[in-house]
Amino acid sequence: MLFAKPLAELIAELEKLPGVGPKSAQRLAYYLLGVPDHEAKRLASAIIEAKEKLRFCTVCENVTDREVCEICADPRRSAQTICVVAEPRDVVAMERINEYRGFYHVLHGLLSPMDGVGPERLRIKSLLARIGLDETSELILATNATIEGDATSLYLAKLVKPLGVKVTRLAHGMPIGGELDYADSATLLSALEYRREL
Amino acid sequence: MLFAKPLAELIAELEKLPGVGPKSAQRLAYYLLGVPDHEAKRLASAIIEAKEKLRFCTVCENVTDREVCEICADPRRSAQTICVVAEPRDVVAMERINEYRGFYHVLHGLLSPMDGVGPERLRIKSLLARIGLDETSELILATNATIEGDATSLYLAKLVKPLGVKVTRLAHGMPIGGELDYADSATLLSALEYRREL
Repeated sequence: MLFAKPLAELIAELEKLPGVGPKSAQRLAYYLLGVPDHEAKRLASAIIEAKEKLRFCTVCENVTDREVCEICADPRRSAQTICVVAEPRDVVAMERINEYRGFYHVLHGLLSPMDGVGPERLRIKSLLARIGLDETSELILATNATIEGDATSLYLAKLVKPLGVKVTRLAHGMPIGGELDYADSATLLSALEYRREL
Repeated sequence: MLFAKPLAELIAELEKLPGVGPKSAQRLAYYLLGVPDHEAKRLASAIIEAKEKLRFCTVCENVTDREVCEICADPRRSAQTICVVAEPRDVVAMERINEYRGFYHVLHGLLSPMDGVGPERLRIKSLLARIGLDETSELILATNATIEGDATSLYLAKLVKPLGVKVTRLAHGMPIGGELDYADSATLLSALEYRREL
């Protein structure tokens, strides 16, 4: 046996993390053995605490430690728009641009028939309930610019448009700072198709 | 605040790990939120257990969960050679070649005057004690092929040779499968200097 049992177990657990291969699992394990006890314990209890305290906002389905998340509880935000994203991390990405002042809805996934993910696996019911109740006038579909993101957007647009709500989607095109030379054809095609008059 | 507090704390703890930047810390945190509770707890307790149960072998200073590690306690191994390495992970690397059948000694570092690491910070005293007691006839210095590894090797050789013990060091040269074209000059120089007669 190359590793003492508690070490082998720690390496095995670390290896389960995404993006952590056998080599980096070993490196992380040896690192944790090297730090003071209280520091390693802080990581362990942060994991436990996060699992115990975090849940999904009853309004927008984002990760929160409250019944209703900070964003949904913010009275300065406009209830007229709901920005629909796939994952909680996408809310973070949107908030980082410091521009959007409406609410969010987290689907927790994208439609992917190949992987057996149908509409029933996404948090769509709670989205429809909100649109029914709230003064929503626009639904901004901010799903990834991928096949799954496209499919989910189309599905939601079809579902929501008949309710009299405006449905928009994030623009596709050249990334800022991008060079034509390096842009893939699909991006360039989309940038051409949706060109704006100046 | 972009993240709920328990989530922010988990991300902060994960970010302290080596090779984990803000982005991957977020990814790991969201991953942990997504796995079943018992799996996340298994990682947390693997950390706690490893910290509680692991210590250093009283003979060779390697990481172990016993008083004397499995390698040192193995009667099939030869006590004639001690292979000196910088870190516990180097023992793993040596064991993986499945050839060496002697014992080890882990220094827990390499001499590095620039970083204030002098001989007193390394586990050298316990090495000398072993050489004094045991039937050691050869000390194999398997430190990295770096400036710190060189310095540590030279220091140990000077210290141990007068005790009548043969001191050797791992060969330097072209890595197996390496192409001359891609080898750096220092490696090539060393390969030339230590060329063998066929």
